Amino acid sequence: MKQQLRVGVIGCGAIGKEHLRRLTDVVPETIVTGVADYFLPAAQSAAEMFHCTAFQTGEDLIASPDVDAVVVTSADPSHAAYVLEAIRHKKFVFCEKPLAQTAEECQQIIAAEQAAGKKLVQVGFMRRYDRGYMAMKHAISSNEIGAPLMIHAAHRNMSQAPGFETDYAVTRVAIHEIDICRWLLDDEYATAQVLGVRQSSRTSGEWLNPQIMMLTTRSGQRIDVEVQTDGAYAYDIQCHVVGEDGIVSLPDPTSVTKRAAAAIHTPLMTDWKDRFIEAYDIEFQEWAKSLLNGAPTGPSAWDGYVACVTGDALIRSRQTGKPEDIVLPEKPEMYQ
Amino acid sequence: MKQQLRVGVIGCGAIGKEHLRRLTDVVPETIVTGVADYFLPAAQSAAEMFHCTAFQTGEDLIASPDVDAVVVTSADPSHAAYVLEAIRHKKFVFCEKPLAQTAEECQQIIAAEQAAGKKLVQVGFMRRYDRGYMAMKHAISSNEIGAPLMIHAAHRNMSQAPGFETDYAVTRVAIHEIDICRWLLDDEYATAQVLGVRQSSRTSGEWLNPQIMMLTTRSGQRIDVEVQTDGAYAYDIQCHVVGEDGIVSLPDPTSVTKRAAAAIHTPLMTDWKDRFIEAYDIEFQEWAKSLLNGAPTGPSAWDGYVACVTGDALIRSRQTGKPEDIVLPEKPEMYQ
Amino acid sequence: MKQQLRVGVIGCGAIGKEHLRRLTDVVPETIVTGVADYFLPAAQSAAEMFHCTAFQTGEDLIASPDVDAVVVTSADPSHAAYVLEAIRHKKFVFCEKPLAQTAEECQQIIAAEQAAGKKLVQVGFMRRYDRGYMAMKHAISSNEIGAPLMIHAAHRNMSQAPGFETDYAVTRVAIHEIDICRWLLDDEYATAQVLGVRQSSRTSGEWLNPQIMMLTTRSGQRIDVEVQTDGAYAYDIQCHVVGEDGIVSLPDPTSVTKRAAAAIHTPLMTDWKDRFIEAYDIEFQEWAKSLLNGAPTGPSAWDGYVACVTGDALIRSRQTGKPEDIVLPEKPEMYQ
Amino acid sequence: MKQQLRVGVIGCGAIGKEHLRRLTDVVPETIVTGVADYFLPAAQSAAEMFHCTAFQTGEDLIASPDVDAVVVTSADPSHAAYVLEAIRHKKFVFCEKPLAQTAEECQQIIAAEQAAGKKLVQVGFMRRYDRGYMAMKHAISSNEIGAPLMIHAAHRNMSQAPGFETDYAVTRVAIHEIDICRWLLDDEYATAQVLGVRQSSRTSGEWLNPQIMMLTTRSGQRIDVEVQTDGAYAYDIQCHVVGEDGIVSLPDPTSVTKRAAAAIHTPLMTDWKDRFIEAYDIEFQEWAKSLLNGAPTGPSAWDGYVACVTGDALIRSRQTGKPEDIVLPEKPEMYQ
Repeated sequence: MKQQLRVGVIGCGAIGKEHLRRLTDVVPETIVTGVADYFLPAAQSAAEMFHCTAFQTGEDLIASPDVDAVVVTSADPSHAAYVLEAIRHKKFVFCEKPLAQTAEECQQIIAAEQAAGKKLVQVGFMRRYDRGYMAMKHAISSNEIGAPLMIHAAHRNMSQAPGFETDYAVTRVAIHEIDICRWLLDDEYATAQVLGVRQSSRTSGEWLNPQIMMLTTRSGQRIDVEVQTDGAYAYDIQCHVVGEDGIVSLPDPTSVTKRAAAAIHTPLMTDWKDRFIEAYDIEFQEWAKSLLNGAPTGPSAWDGYVACVTGDALIRSRQTGKPEDIVLPEKPEMYQ
Repeated sequence: MKQQLRVGVIGCGAIGKEHLRRLTDVVPETIVTGVADYFLPAAQSAAEMFHCTAFQTGEDLIASPDVDAVVVTSADPSHAAYVLEAIRHKKFVFCEKPLAQTAEECQQIIAAEQAAGKKLVQVGFMRRYDRGYMAMKHAISSNEIGAPLMIHAAHRNMSQAPGFETDYAVTRVAIHEIDICRWLLDDEYATAQVLGVRQSSRTSGEWLNPQIMMLTTRSGQRIDVEVQTDGAYAYDIQCHVVGEDGIVSLPDPTSVTKRAAAAIHTPLMTDWKDRFIEAYDIEFQEWAKSLLNGAPTGPSAWDGYVACVTGDALIRSRQTGKPEDIVLPEKPEMYQ
Repeated sequence: MKQQLRVGVIGCGAIGKEHLRRLTDVVPETIVTGVADYFLPAAQSAAEMFHCTAFQTGEDLIASPDVDAVVVTSADPSHAAYVLEAIRHKKFVFCEKPLAQTAEECQQIIAAEQAAGKKLVQVGFMRRYDRGYMAMKHAISSNEIGAPLMIHAAHRNMSQAPGFETDYAVTRVAIHEIDICRWLLDDEYATAQVLGVRQSSRTSGEWLNPQIMMLTTRSGQRIDVEVQTDGAYAYDIQCHVVGEDGIVSLPDPTSVTKRAAAAIHTPLMTDWKDRFIEAYDIEFQEWAKSLLNGAPTGPSAWDGYVACVTGDALIRSRQTGKPEDIVLPEKPEMYQ
Repeated sequence: MKQQLRVGVIGCGAIGKEHLRRLTDVVPETIVTGVADYFLPAAQSAAEMFHCTAFQTGEDLIASPDVDAVVVTSADPSHAAYVLEAIRHKKFVFCEKPLAQTAEECQQIIAAEQAAGKKLVQVGFMRRYDRGYMAMKHAISSNEIGAPLMIHAAHRNMSQAPGFETDYAVTRVAIHEIDICRWLLDDEYATAQVLGVRQSSRTSGEWLNPQIMMLTTRSGQRIDVEVQTDGAYAYDIQCHVVGEDGIVSLPDPTSVTKRAAAAIHTPLMTDWKDRFIEAYDIEFQEWAKSLLNGAPTGPSAWDGYVACVTGDALIRSRQTGKPEDIVLPEKPEMYQ
């Protein structure tokens, strides 16, 4: 029999259901034993679909002896509390980004994990599992482009759900670049700044779009991220790392090329779920394997904390109109 | 608990072990319960690695009540007998290509499957599960390029194992194009011809390399396949379907682009196992799901038979020096 | 003062006027002194436009003391006679392809040029001046792809003028591939064959379209040319030379890439005049310079003759249904 | 006879000789009648090579009745004086960038040209004649990408002559982006800033490399230019204009693609003279034609002035560490 990890999922919305299907269909090591949702009928319907228990509350799910590991995909403001509760029960917990709403909450999580004396938390920065980013990381560490000096990145979206706000361009959109760039460069950030730019008339709401986010690292590397939250021509992710000796670029996702009507056409993706579908699959396969081996090896609570601090600095800089410093405490040994 | 299919694998060589890992790691619906190999120690070592029973013979494995479905990855000459034996036990059987060594054996398998009154056999033409070919098929059926008229294809290999022979260029190499082109065009072949060409000095043995294979379909479409069995610059698969209104092309596999040393470099693959790794995964995931739903939906015994008949015609044409007709009996209703 | 070559142009149709503009605007060494056309008013109108003399006949133009070199762009059947007349006057003559309608006429031209004891003739195979083909030639001679074994080519057109016929697919279309492939491979042809293929419903007339042309060289290299005379998605020229160690490919013409509407779009050309505009410019610039240096260095009467013989074999093979041999006399020393 | 413009060239260094060859070989309308150089033997050698007069001084050349139009390709600090002298003689003058060393000198030139009452000056911003940039300009004006919001650009060089200084990254390198971006966007600049970045160890001298240059326009568009003055992997020019509805990108220069050694290779250029060779040709062909039609139509003294003012602001910002405003007077009617 395959060794199996019993997983409970808190949050049965769109991404929650995606992960339920993933844990069921493509991760042989996991078996979903329970679900919970703030809106009980959502949990009940998911429980039926995936043949498992619907718990009354996330806390009940976490406490259940039938749950070895918890996946948190509920609304952003509820993340931190569920993660802390899982740590209290010494259970593994995978939390979709963001880890928390504030840097303070992240620090509480870090403190709790340290007190537990065991790595329990993984944050859902799935891009680290994308084959393209992985190959870029490999090219950089193999010194194929010399010392990295700059990153030019873009994150372009076609639409956002109603209720979107300017700050979400950082906390829900650029947060992926915040994480992936420091992972690629293997350095911490020094400053952050948001630059204003002529606005697109294609934005469906009142928020600022586009925005340009600038980051520097401690070694002076400079990152620029063009963020289009809305109205872009495709869901298009660009990342070019410029080194002393060359440049390595994230490939566009594979797709068939067509020659027709006097042009070469290569379709681009329109949905972020499709763009990183394989990365999500690998993320959960690796997560399950790492837990069966004793501890998560993916993005840690520290990574979630740094993303939060950096996001705060970006948002602050929009008010001050100048670069804001990013100051971090010593990194605890657990996260070295 | 996940519903699981108990699978036995006959043949524990390189590709056999790949499939064992696949059935264990990425196909949640399958559990490997037994292995067999002509060379018993190979079976014993695989059994230890994958925690299952090592059977004395393939026949024992097929007969075992712990085996619901059989995967045949043994040496080519043994395929047909194992498939017939599985049919005799009314068990599902996945057979790596080729289905058999001769068209006659393929016909026996078809007769046996018909007598069993149930679709049991699937042949391992994994390219049908490659995302690139699937997107091409979709573009053609959606009429994006008009009526398809021609296919230009290439199958380039870097090396072959010792003992390779000229005919293997058909039976082990071009067999993939034989299957994928009729699947893309949704038509049967009419003629086949091998054309001689200036030989490469990079071939590591005595066989002919390269060879050009020409096929026509009943509707007059024409396919040319450049086959390099050995010594090529990469493992490189090309396929361009030319229609009245445009062309759709198989994409190169995604890989990071690098700008360095006064050139743009995009790495190509060197190993066929990497090139179609995702296709193999999807192939077995779909196979397992289809069996749990009652019957295999992938390439059938008929497809294996047509590949064999077409391969025979290609080989014959090398002797006659002219196009050879491909004559097929009526397709049994089971395969419509 | 710039040293100048006084040029007379016979044939004032579309391509004739293109060349008049070219000789005037982008070739500093040439000055157009006269024009002639079977249809006198066409000559008169061109003479007015380009400030030169309208001659009553091509023969008058050739005989004129104001004409140092003749450009023949009249209707195909008149080429040979004008070229012979120019040779009789020991004048340089640039003749648009084809050099003549029959191999016999080409041989007469060769004989006349030999008798004149001086290289006078250049044939308008302008692709040899295309930067892409030139770079391919360079890569091959630099041994970047090892010994060349095969060429895969395509010549796709969007439309043809009324009156087009099946044979013109050879004499007006594939004639460019006939010339460029032997130039790239630096070998002569051994056999030629036209293969039938499913016909496109997009053809605007009664001729066969598409056709596949197969050529072999004396060293056994094999060339396949997909010819779409009509109805294609663009004017698209493809050429891939496959060597033992790699492949070199003709680039698509440069054009801006656009990302919009969920796709990457790269425009293709629709008009052959645009596709090779730079090659035509360079062709005439080189021609003028070579004449001022004493003799033309471009495609010779021999090249025109071989193209004609090869075209004949292709056309013959359509009737016989099998490969036709290409037999050539010794190449006169003048063309070595 | 072709109508010809008699041109004198001041400055017979590398670029001067390039232009002499160009004016002689590819611009039918021009005939070089004289040359001058601060170092007389250089002028004499060029005069011999191009069969024209060597003048003792640039002033003598300008004054000569045999010179209709002047090309200034001498050392940067001498540009302004020669241009003013040519205006004084009411002669057309083509001046390589920069037009002058200071904004004040540019204003004097503008004043002189206004006083002359006739457009006489063209500045050598040759990128406006590059087919790639022209196609981008066309795509933007045709509204193919909606309102342009941002430009991401890069200007990467492999080496610089000894004596290079940090400021030259603006005045000799980024000056091309300064001109081409406002031409593409059809707007004037509002602010300019240079950002520091981790330095490359591949720089051959003491200057700062790389630098990032940021510009905003009056309508709020934002331009970032990565400048590598030295040590880059190729001479590589990138330009992506991001609009509301899509992105248009400068193509890489055409070059043959090679598949070999397990990779796709596309060579990049290493020399700026090759990269824009066709643009230079077109630039001078258009210049000559426009003068024969009465007045230059290319980049004007105003464009040279704006480049200078913008460059000053960039250099100033490196000292102040913050964005510097770009303030321009009213644009004189002559340049509308």
